[in-house]
Amino acid sequence: MGATRKDGDARGRQDVDRGARRRGEFDLITSLFAPLAQRHPAALNLADDAAVLPPPDGGQHTVVSMDTLVSGTHFLPDDPADLVARKAMRVNLSDMAAMGARPLGVFLSVALSPAEDDAWMDRFTEGLEQDLRAFDVGLLGGDTVATPGPATFSITILGTVPPGAHLSRGGGRPGDRLWVSGTIGDAALGLKALRGDLPFLCESHRSTLADRYHVPRPRVALGLGLRGLATAALDISDGLAADLEHMCRASGCAARVQVASVPLSAMARRCVEADATLWDAVLGGGDDYEVLFAASPAREAAIRALGARLDVPLTLVGELIPVPVGDGAPVVHLLGQTGAPLTPATKGYSHR
Amino acid sequence: MGATRKDGDARGRQDVDRGARRRGEFDLITSLFAPLAQRHPAALNLADDAAVLPPPDGGQHTVVSMDTLVSGTHFLPDDPADLVARKAMRVNLSDMAAMGARPLGVFLSVALSPAEDDAWMDRFTEGLEQDLRAFDVGLLGGDTVATPGPATFSITILGTVPPGAHLSRGGGRPGDRLWVSGTIGDAALGLKALRGDLPFLCESHRSTLADRYHVPRPRVALGLGLRGLATAALDISDGLAADLEHMCRASGCAARVQVASVPLSAMARRCVEADATLWDAVLGGGDDYEVLFAASPAREAAIRALGARLDVPLTLVGELIPVPVGDGAPVVHLLGQTGAPLTPATKGYSHR
Repeated sequence: MGATRKDGDARGRQDVDRGARRRGEFDLITSLFAPLAQRHPAALNLADDAAVLPPPDGGQHTVVSMDTLVSGTHFLPDDPADLVARKAMRVNLSDMAAMGARPLGVFLSVALSPAEDDAWMDRFTEGLEQDLRAFDVGLLGGDTVATPGPATFSITILGTVPPGAHLSRGGGRPGDRLWVSGTIGDAALGLKALRGDLPFLCESHRSTLADRYHVPRPRVALGLGLRGLATAALDISDGLAADLEHMCRASGCAARVQVASVPLSAMARRCVEADATLWDAVLGGGDDYEVLFAASPAREAAIRALGARLDVPLTLVGELIPVPVGDGAPVVHLLGQTGAPLTPATKGYSHR
Repeated sequence: MGATRKDGDARGRQDVDRGARRRGEFDLITSLFAPLAQRHPAALNLADDAAVLPPPDGGQHTVVSMDTLVSGTHFLPDDPADLVARKAMRVNLSDMAAMGARPLGVFLSVALSPAEDDAWMDRFTEGLEQDLRAFDVGLLGGDTVATPGPATFSITILGTVPPGAHLSRGGGRPGDRLWVSGTIGDAALGLKALRGDLPFLCESHRSTLADRYHVPRPRVALGLGLRGLATAALDISDGLAADLEHMCRASGCAARVQVASVPLSAMARRCVEADATLWDAVLGGGDDYEVLFAASPAREAAIRALGARLDVPLTLVGELIPVPVGDGAPVVHLLGQTGAPLTPATKGYSHR
């Protein structure tokens, strides 16, 4: 790892630091990544200094986002490599869902530490291929370097959207209803399960929750369906409470959420019944990658029809309201079973 | 750094891990990056989950590349922060130059270790802004996370090129002349100077070489000018010998280079005269970020005129030739002063 400069390889855009051990520089590209890049001609077989994309059909706009995962911070060092690849793919796909964009392709930057050997990268590539196929997106390019660690994976994702059709965080208005997809809190509880913190759950429930942590379900089809229906949308990565606050600040609104309405899986229900402090993880834990969106009450029937058509549970959890008077007033009001407000704790929100 | 999930912030696409110390999550975006993002409306003020770019004018194609720099591997941990930002920008801009693309904007992923405090990031941002202005490109989005270290910066750059006009590595043909821009070897020697390895140089020469290591000069205008003139092009990041081999393999050619023709700065000339083994660093050291290109002999006058117009030195260093018979035959022939071939060493090429 003594080299202090950018090292490349014969395959150009997919560069491998010359200091990297294990699989040779060229092999990592030619044997692992180049076959995946066959799916899209813009990748130029990873053989040049960049990808070249034709303009999207029909004057569509290009939607671009970037998300980075660091070992030990965004995934566990002993997480299965294929699940790491799929999580990296999916948190980026979730940004496309939040924008109402159709995913087109990804660029992958891989910084490998000595801990990731050939077998690890083989399995990483399997997971990558699985999700490239599942979401019909191309591997268009990227970069591979060595790091003393931790391993770091950065994905830039490109998608398309008709002009003016993208979903933003800032379009919500007082009176809009608030909806969430799927169930909330499973991933945060899954992380706790992986750490052995939920001993009261059966093994089956623990592994189901862990799966929600490892493999987010980006709501790409839902994002496409919400074009023209939602006034504001984002994906829940920081936790329902925090992301709702993001939407409120972008939209110039406040919000009221009935906590009893927040959709929970049977496992999550079991958790908060066993230990009410786990509401913190549910509402504040994040990593849900479900879609939180706002829509006019007049759209309720259309939204329910969309959920039914896509087989995605969509649940009304509250509404946007005018910003309260006074600088210190909270923007997000979480109302408990009795209608009493819940109080934000230092991290997440404590139940009282 | 205990958090194990993706943490975001109110400004959406620019996410900061909640575990990050120093400047608050929002401040890093709102005070440092959002002002830079004002330059391009596609950035949506970094306030949403992604950037939204209109299709480029005139049906142009979009050129996309990604390059990652790791502290201690691609820059020195005590390098000035503004120069780190500018190097990260410039190695990506150099990919645009190599493709003949006009740079449009960048996405920046920042993984900060505890070593990068507020003052470091202020200076990093100054360097970033300086080069965003200098090359007239927008900061369109990105991602900010925490890492135990080393700091890692990944940039995805977008540019445009008319359909079919991009420069590739694979278009060279036997008989084409080989050209390089600028001077070769300065950056690799600059790294040696920074390490105290070139005691025979005066301080002024050492600092000039170090500057070539810290601040590459991406040849963006040259790349644009070479559209329609060059048959093949790439930027020299791995060293002239290695990158020429990349071009040869992509083009299905071999190459002959007269080492005496390789353009050296006065400092580099002084180095190889003092110590002939430094030819290894010159020809194999890399980090030049000059353009190596091939062109028909008929284009020589046009190329010389281009170099004069842009005030970029362009030097003929050799030619592409048919691939020699035999599997083991070298593809790149470096010919010394006497016409005798030079032999590749383990790293770089040794002079004999």
